[in-house]
Amino acid sequence: MQVAVVGGGDCSPKVREQAQELGRLLAERGHILICGGLGGVMEAVAHGARTAGGLVVGVLPGEKIDANPCISIAIATGMGHARNVIIVKSADAVIALPGEHGALSEIALALKMKKRVISLQSWDIPGTIKAETPEEAVKLLD
Amino acid sequence: MQVAVVGGGDCSPKVREQAQELGRLLAERGHILICGGLGGVMEAVAHGARTAGGLVVGVLPGEKIDANPCISIAIATGMGHARNVIIVKSADAVIALPGEHGALSEIALALKMKKRVISLQSWDIPGTIKAETPEEAVKLLD
Amino acid sequence: MQVAVVGGGDCSPKVREQAQELGRLLAERGHILICGGLGGVMEAVAHGARTAGGLVVGVLPGEKIDANPCISIAIATGMGHARNVIIVKSADAVIALPGEHGALSEIALALKMKKRVISLQSWDIPGTIKAETPEEAVKLLD
Amino acid sequence: MQVAVVGGGDCSPKVREQAQELGRLLAERGHILICGGLGGVMEAVAHGARTAGGLVVGVLPGEKIDANPCISIAIATGMGHARNVIIVKSADAVIALPGEHGALSEIALALKMKKRVISLQSWDIPGTIKAETPEEAVKLLD
Repeated sequence: MQVAVVGGGDCSPKVREQAQELGRLLAERGHILICGGLGGVMEAVAHGARTAGGLVVGVLPGEKIDANPCISIAIATGMGHARNVIIVKSADAVIALPGEHGALSEIALALKMKKRVISLQSWDIPGTIKAETPEEAVKLLD
Repeated sequence: MQVAVVGGGDCSPKVREQAQELGRLLAERGHILICGGLGGVMEAVAHGARTAGGLVVGVLPGEKIDANPCISIAIATGMGHARNVIIVKSADAVIALPGEHGALSEIALALKMKKRVISLQSWDIPGTIKAETPEEAVKLLD
Repeated sequence: MQVAVVGGGDCSPKVREQAQELGRLLAERGHILICGGLGGVMEAVAHGARTAGGLVVGVLPGEKIDANPCISIAIATGMGHARNVIIVKSADAVIALPGEHGALSEIALALKMKKRVISLQSWDIPGTIKAETPEEAVKLLD
Repeated sequence: MQVAVVGGGDCSPKVREQAQELGRLLAERGHILICGGLGGVMEAVAHGARTAGGLVVGVLPGEKIDANPCISIAIATGMGHARNVIIVKSADAVIALPGEHGALSEIALALKMKKRVISLQSWDIPGTIKAETPEEAVKLLD
């Protein structure tokens, strides 16, 4: 599966830890991780996945050079926030960690596209499935 | 001003009436209306504005031919949901009427871009300004 | 008709004069002009059209504030070169003035979309129709 | 390196053979192949790369399901021809095989972005570097 993980460009140490754990679990199950390629949750989940031998695609708002060091494949869109559409459209399922309006837009777009959206302590929007831990979020993919 | 109005592709008769009234008020104040160019709220607000002599831009997900009959200028993006980004990015302010996840994505994207977002009985997201009537929504533009 | 005019962001005084004349002729015939909204050919054709009372849409790669002063309606895509696709897709016909690789991409995209492309002393690509003067280019729209 | 290969959605048996050979050579050198993910040249180069153990990214105009069977990672843009911008923007260099106006748009966009563009018997546009064989094209990447 191609799994998108979305969340804030800044995050607390606790969320960072959860994102790393989530990345590790996704990689161990052989899923391809798709993320926004920048910092915060995007970097933490990429780090977790890459360290566990996973493949990480960063769909960037700008240039290839903006990608964090854990990105395996950098997709440079030059399209700003419109890259959020590509992240969720390329995913078989979306896992949302805490984030602000950017993450909310990705949750909304994914629900609009009828994708499965798992909210791991992120926005509580009707249509999302709640998870409390990375383990639970990953189990909800099956 | 260029004002974006977002809302459901289907809507109730009551929302349709509000959207038409909103379109009329925007046109009377000389604002350019930007909308998604299709049916429901998009068509009602366009109808209200056009009937009052206003200019209506439809930023379409697909082709020019998809535009509703009240669109003055059809911007055919061929970009699906990514056209939501263009609608809000082109606006000086956004007024949201009731809608589902598409409208929510536009509210979120507009807040991400630090635009003024007026929620006219639409999603209650932190950062939006609430309005109860079209008159009140239009006053909040000043 | 919605007519797109494409050409270089820099241009010679002679091309500038032709672009202004072309803008005037398009406006006099009641066509809506679509252009890239920036400088060079884009500004000259917008100036010609606006001075003659025409409506000019600028489909910008970045922000609204980047629009030249002759743009009536600024569509801010934030999508960089991908806005070239929107310019030609929104047009019933495309007129190309001299330009470099950006103009060439718009000619190619328009031909790919089976649009009529009139080359006014621009790139000589199979499928385009040649015009020598703005008058001739505008007549080829009929 | 991330290398984009562009070319026609239909192609002759000879071009197909060249594209497969090119894909193989790119994979053997450890390059990541980026292509449009559909048929013709896109499928042949993907087949060549995948058979040689390479990683192939397909940047699709529509949905994930449209990807040819040799795509490792499907990026579903839903953005039609605007995905051409993403293909070349994500590439460190572009190799063009014979194609029609779609390939021409990608060559033009890549030159606009100041990318190295190698024309393997494709369009002869000033700024491209000519190659006669896949081997020669791949050597020109160094």
